[in-house]
Amino acid sequence: MKIRPFPVREDPAIARERMAGLRLPPINPTADTVLDADLRKRLYQGELPEQALGRMETLLLQLARIQNKAPLPFDLLAFDSPQLVVFAADHGIADEGVSLFPQSVTRERVGQLRMGNTPTNTLADLHGFDLTLVDAGVATHLQAPEGERKPTVPLQLRKIGYATRNMVLSPAMSVAQAVSALHAGMDVVHHLPGNVVALGDVGVGSTSSAALLLSRLCGVPLADACGPGSGLDEPRQQQKLEKLFAAATRHRKATAPLDALAAMGGFEIAMMAGAMLQAAAERRVVLVDGFVSSAAALVARGLVPAVTDYLVFTHRSAEPGHRLLLIHLQAQPLLDMELRMGQGMGALLAWPLLQAAQRLLER
Amino acid sequence: MKIRPFPVREDPAIARERMAGLRLPPINPTADTVLDADLRKRLYQGELPEQALGRMETLLLQLARIQNKAPLPFDLLAFDSPQLVVFAADHGIADEGVSLFPQSVTRERVGQLRMGNTPTNTLADLHGFDLTLVDAGVATHLQAPEGERKPTVPLQLRKIGYATRNMVLSPAMSVAQAVSALHAGMDVVHHLPGNVVALGDVGVGSTSSAALLLSRLCGVPLADACGPGSGLDEPRQQQKLEKLFAAATRHRKATAPLDALAAMGGFEIAMMAGAMLQAAAERRVVLVDGFVSSAAALVARGLVPAVTDYLVFTHRSAEPGHRLLLIHLQAQPLLDMELRMGQGMGALLAWPLLQAAQRLLER
Repeated sequence: MKIRPFPVREDPAIARERMAGLRLPPINPTADTVLDADLRKRLYQGELPEQALGRMETLLLQLARIQNKAPLPFDLLAFDSPQLVVFAADHGIADEGVSLFPQSVTRERVGQLRMGNTPTNTLADLHGFDLTLVDAGVATHLQAPEGERKPTVPLQLRKIGYATRNMVLSPAMSVAQAVSALHAGMDVVHHLPGNVVALGDVGVGSTSSAALLLSRLCGVPLADACGPGSGLDEPRQQQKLEKLFAAATRHRKATAPLDALAAMGGFEIAMMAGAMLQAAAERRVVLVDGFVSSAAALVARGLVPAVTDYLVFTHRSAEPGHRLLLIHLQAQPLLDMELRMGQGMGALLAWPLLQAAQRLLER
Repeated sequence: MKIRPFPVREDPAIARERMAGLRLPPINPTADTVLDADLRKRLYQGELPEQALGRMETLLLQLARIQNKAPLPFDLLAFDSPQLVVFAADHGIADEGVSLFPQSVTRERVGQLRMGNTPTNTLADLHGFDLTLVDAGVATHLQAPEGERKPTVPLQLRKIGYATRNMVLSPAMSVAQAVSALHAGMDVVHHLPGNVVALGDVGVGSTSSAALLLSRLCGVPLADACGPGSGLDEPRQQQKLEKLFAAATRHRKATAPLDALAAMGGFEIAMMAGAMLQAAAERRVVLVDGFVSSAAALVARGLVPAVTDYLVFTHRSAEPGHRLLLIHLQAQPLLDMELRMGQGMGALLAWPLLQAAQRLLER
């Protein structure tokens, strides 16, 4: 009698991605225990007790593993043309009053970023980051702002739609749109120079999406994932939570990462997830910023788990869900400055720690 | 009948300081609510929600208050020739086996710092800090190390003694020595240029002193204040705790800051406390490093409470007592990198956050 092999059934989530036409780049895990041991020896050189450098050592090892291109032996860390990409998009759920600000604020903030006026521009300038803005799906048509000064920051038009749909009433986007946004994010990073990419975001209503993705993909109760965003008071936060419950109930079947992204994500979140995957495939260091950027990391990890090797979590924001999200990603952020903003601010503040790690290896 | 005023009795601690010949510099508190409101307005310029910058705002306000020299209106932050001073001293209690390393390691580390070989030198160089070493009381006579290369870092000889005495058996130093060390620390800072001073320390056995001071001056149980230092295992940590109990019992009457410092402190701790007081009196920004440096801050605060306005706590170390000490100082450190070393490493790692604060105000 001939024994037939037990039929291997494809993971339904992977089958779903294939059906949707999603192309995922191959990402190599970076673990290398020989490299780790070698670096630890180099780092301390008999001068300091073990673990004296604490989490600087952890950071340094991660960076070295990313830049360790076999068969060449690893020598020094080298950072080249660091890039900050800020993805802007609007969220249909803003119609439900889940944010302190009206939707028009997204556009205003993009305008200020383009003119070089914001704290983000200042710090990008201080630390030598090139800033690129991407219109992933702002609710209005973006054009050069009027006035005397010309915009100093390039804007890429990659609009997937004029804001996502209100996810209390329907999916935020179609699966095809989610795939387009992921591909667009990959494409943006693919055409950027350098080996370091920081990802930021702008978009009124984005913490609602991030909270829903955290709840769905990690099993965190919505009441814990939902926070004040840009500063809602207690009653309005309660109202936000009710809307999120309604959305989560409507999309209760969207459990796979791609489905959850389409049903409850945002265009900027999808693009950031794509950007992370591409950057990891090209062995770039990825600086993850706040709550929304970390939600994109959650999606990216759901699609290709090895991506986490390339992600440096730069800070923990004041949004309470971010703490839980980082715990689920088993990530210890570099800073805890209680920021209440995206735009890559945390990534820029933490950047000098990576430069310090680089120098510590050069001694 | 003539009413005689109620006789004002001098605080016994202050009377004690006067008797001991301690000269304390006058320190002005920096609180200024008008300045705070003005800076918040400048910082956000209608672009960001309130508190968007989280603890960067707190840091920025503290720095601005320090540099706010009335009657001139405050304009911008300006940092000038930042200095790192590393105080080295030995502790007699090392004889009791409370440290992983023998006492000779202090001398070795000072030698490495002088030759410019350590991570501290590397980062001081990266961030443009001038490094000064001070021999506060190393157990051996320090001289230029043998070899081809000449030392690159200046060493100030301010030795109060060849290590403190073993505080399990007797006070670590006399009150007169403590006063001399405080004055020496003031003098060191007084002769340094610039308006930023970071304080680091080297010395085998120093966490024993820090734990005892924390316990005595804040009422923290010794078992919570005592930690593994440079990496003691559990049984040896238990042994360290027993020695600390013996020392605390012997010096149970040393409750005033100056008395506690003399009985259970270290020469480098006393000098750092003096350095903090002088720097604050000259309205310099003081970067406080790890557990030992923070214990010095505790002593300085005990002598002149207003000094805390000038102290920027740069990091929380892996030593468990440091967390409690910072809570008692109501201080939130900038970093939490789980470092296991002094030498100003945490202060150097956190420095770019102060530079970022400076730039954020310049927009």
